[in-house]
Amino acid sequence: MNWIERDSAVVWHGFTQMGCYADNAPVIVERGEGRELIDVDGRRYLDAFSSLWVTTLGHRVPELDQALREQIDRIAHSTLLGNGNRIAIEFAEALAQVVPVDQAHILFASDGAAAVEQALKMAFQYWTNRGVSGRSTYLAFGGAYHGDSVGSLSVGAGGFGTDIFDPLRFPVIRAPTFGDPQAFETAASLIDRHRHELAAVIVEPLVQGAAGMQLAPAAQFAKLRIACQRADVLLICDEVATGFGRTGTLFAAEQCGLRPDILCLGKGITGGYLPMSATVASQRVFDAFLGPDLSERTFYHGHSYGGNALAAAVALRHLQLFGELKVLANVNERSVQLRRALDSLRRSRPCISDIRLVGLMGAIEISDAAGAAKTARKICAAMVQRGVLTRSLGNVVTLVPPLTITAAEIERIVAALTGAIDEAVV
Amino acid sequence: MNWIERDSAVVWHGFTQMGCYADNAPVIVERGEGRELIDVDGRRYLDAFSSLWVTTLGHRVPELDQALREQIDRIAHSTLLGNGNRIAIEFAEALAQVVPVDQAHILFASDGAAAVEQALKMAFQYWTNRGVSGRSTYLAFGGAYHGDSVGSLSVGAGGFGTDIFDPLRFPVIRAPTFGDPQAFETAASLIDRHRHELAAVIVEPLVQGAAGMQLAPAAQFAKLRIACQRADVLLICDEVATGFGRTGTLFAAEQCGLRPDILCLGKGITGGYLPMSATVASQRVFDAFLGPDLSERTFYHGHSYGGNALAAAVALRHLQLFGELKVLANVNERSVQLRRALDSLRRSRPCISDIRLVGLMGAIEISDAAGAAKTARKICAAMVQRGVLTRSLGNVVTLVPPLTITAAEIERIVAALTGAIDEAVV
Repeated sequence: MNWIERDSAVVWHGFTQMGCYADNAPVIVERGEGRELIDVDGRRYLDAFSSLWVTTLGHRVPELDQALREQIDRIAHSTLLGNGNRIAIEFAEALAQVVPVDQAHILFASDGAAAVEQALKMAFQYWTNRGVSGRSTYLAFGGAYHGDSVGSLSVGAGGFGTDIFDPLRFPVIRAPTFGDPQAFETAASLIDRHRHELAAVIVEPLVQGAAGMQLAPAAQFAKLRIACQRADVLLICDEVATGFGRTGTLFAAEQCGLRPDILCLGKGITGGYLPMSATVASQRVFDAFLGPDLSERTFYHGHSYGGNALAAAVALRHLQLFGELKVLANVNERSVQLRRALDSLRRSRPCISDIRLVGLMGAIEISDAAGAAKTARKICAAMVQRGVLTRSLGNVVTLVPPLTITAAEIERIVAALTGAIDEAVV
Repeated sequence: MNWIERDSAVVWHGFTQMGCYADNAPVIVERGEGRELIDVDGRRYLDAFSSLWVTTLGHRVPELDQALREQIDRIAHSTLLGNGNRIAIEFAEALAQVVPVDQAHILFASDGAAAVEQALKMAFQYWTNRGVSGRSTYLAFGGAYHGDSVGSLSVGAGGFGTDIFDPLRFPVIRAPTFGDPQAFETAASLIDRHRHELAAVIVEPLVQGAAGMQLAPAAQFAKLRIACQRADVLLICDEVATGFGRTGTLFAAEQCGLRPDILCLGKGITGGYLPMSATVASQRVFDAFLGPDLSERTFYHGHSYGGNALAAAVALRHLQLFGELKVLANVNERSVQLRRALDSLRRSRPCISDIRLVGLMGAIEISDAAGAAKTARKICAAMVQRGVLTRSLGNVVTLVPPLTITAAEIERIVAALTGAIDEAVV
């Protein structure tokens, strides 16, 4: 059996129709080098979607590898339930200094969805602990994606045909999609109207990633901030996708002028190396959980590998490298370059109906009467044949390269995209 | 500030009342060596709860460290969404050969709760894909714990005061606790009665860990197997806690004579090194999801770090070591030794009201009219002062040592427990 057959026989790939997995010419990765992935046959691919938006500095970054090796010589993991671990403390201290949250307290998990679940449950129990009843629902946006577990799926807008799970989901109050020009006014008035029912508002600041990079103007988020303050409703920012430089600032909330009560982090937190996620709570939220030992005010929630020492060691070094390598400056320069190139391409390729880009989080929307989702998929397949790996998401081709991408590599991506469009769109 | 103060200032510890975290003399781990943890001041502790039931072979296992180092030189991570990774395939092949599931297909995640969420959603969509409607609930047991995310919490029995989250939980059909002698008869008749509403039955085979190691006789599980087959209801075994040798067989389902349709794994899967969890589906379940590309039959679910290459490399080597080191033989020998020592201790210490032990998953139940939970906590604190680290769980002291624990180390644990009881119980 070849590698693809071996893979199909035992691995169930997420978000993937396994009935035609092998037909879609998947890349079986064996090694990495810088921003390139190398498959089992030695073919090289530029990782233009950052292994699903997680890789920030590239693969096999010497400094991250070194941090990992040093931690292996200390310990791989010890639990944070009731006890501490030095490297987890050191990373939490560094993270607390840079997150847009007042006096941050950090509860670690491993999956991004788990960070969202923790945020939802924290917000819920916050009101219970304060003796306020009836605050048991959430406001979330149309088009939102917050993860796949039942709680995170409940606040999500049910894309990808996942509304079949409605019987398992709790109901939420739904604001319009980011695409609606009145979205934030409507959200604000819904917050006012439901102030006594709402535990929290949850939002992806600046860009709804899984919805195909749907953008909202940064200035609009002030309406959300003001409405939450006026109604005394907690604000949760889900920055699992946008965090760690992806949008051109360390966190997208900064551009939106938001300081959430609770912040959800994942993906880029370890530079794309190891599973780690985190829920960051403000002092106000944290304080509501303080009480006598073994009391009901405690947050009885925790995951086995939360604060994993190997992941924390990489995450700490990664955060330091952000400054040392001037990563944000590169994101903004390459974003301008990519924007110009895509705008230019759009003028000559009518199948491109929209370009959405913030930082290095981009989507090329394809319009095709014969089925845009299939065409977007064909374009990605043709890009892979040209040595540039990315993935379609509905009717868009996503471009989410590592944050250290070079000018030449941006040109390589655009050239592959151009060739792929010309091949796939007839 | 000392380490405990630094820790308390930024880390929110799961399942921990942060208001008195510092007062409870937490251990701040810096390094590990074999089955010992070493704190920031160089003090050594025998890890008698396996860093919350995850560590199997000990800390800094040379072979696991080596596997990790070799994988660092290849790649840390690439996504499994739509593409493959060689080491994930190799681990999945090895795992598929040893799990008690027919023609296993493995969907990876990172948190154990996420593995349960995947199982619940798979079972739900299985019926939708087959065109069967109304199969939208689950049967779960009293005392069950399946994780902290909203879906896993819904099938859990709401311990630790988590019933405050009831407004977020979906309802399930609840069988009695393992402690009820009629539990399995009742479960079987509930399955019969609700056969047209049930997507699946979920159970922790042999032992309900978080309920304080509540045991059920292995023979009872045949009733569950027969009832599920008769009613054509899927069976989910949650082996996040019991898997990978903890109960004396590689999986507890083997002792129960169960071959589940879906199996949930976590904790010990990487030997306690790195976050990884997995949902293992049988061919029957997997087949129901096959269909045309981009179709609604697809399982639209996936986590960023599922199948992480570093975790897979460790997990693969760990599985090989299980045979090479004859781990299961040691579990069974040390279990007999521990059982004898605890039985002997119980005869002279009336505060011990029950001993529950299967493999190396043990609980000493404390009875104390003045408050057993606080006494169990005091006993654990006194054990820590004697250089043996464990954690209480309600009114029990848990003993869950690494699977490679030696005879001398078992004696060290029992000596510390004896001294701690004599100090804490007056």
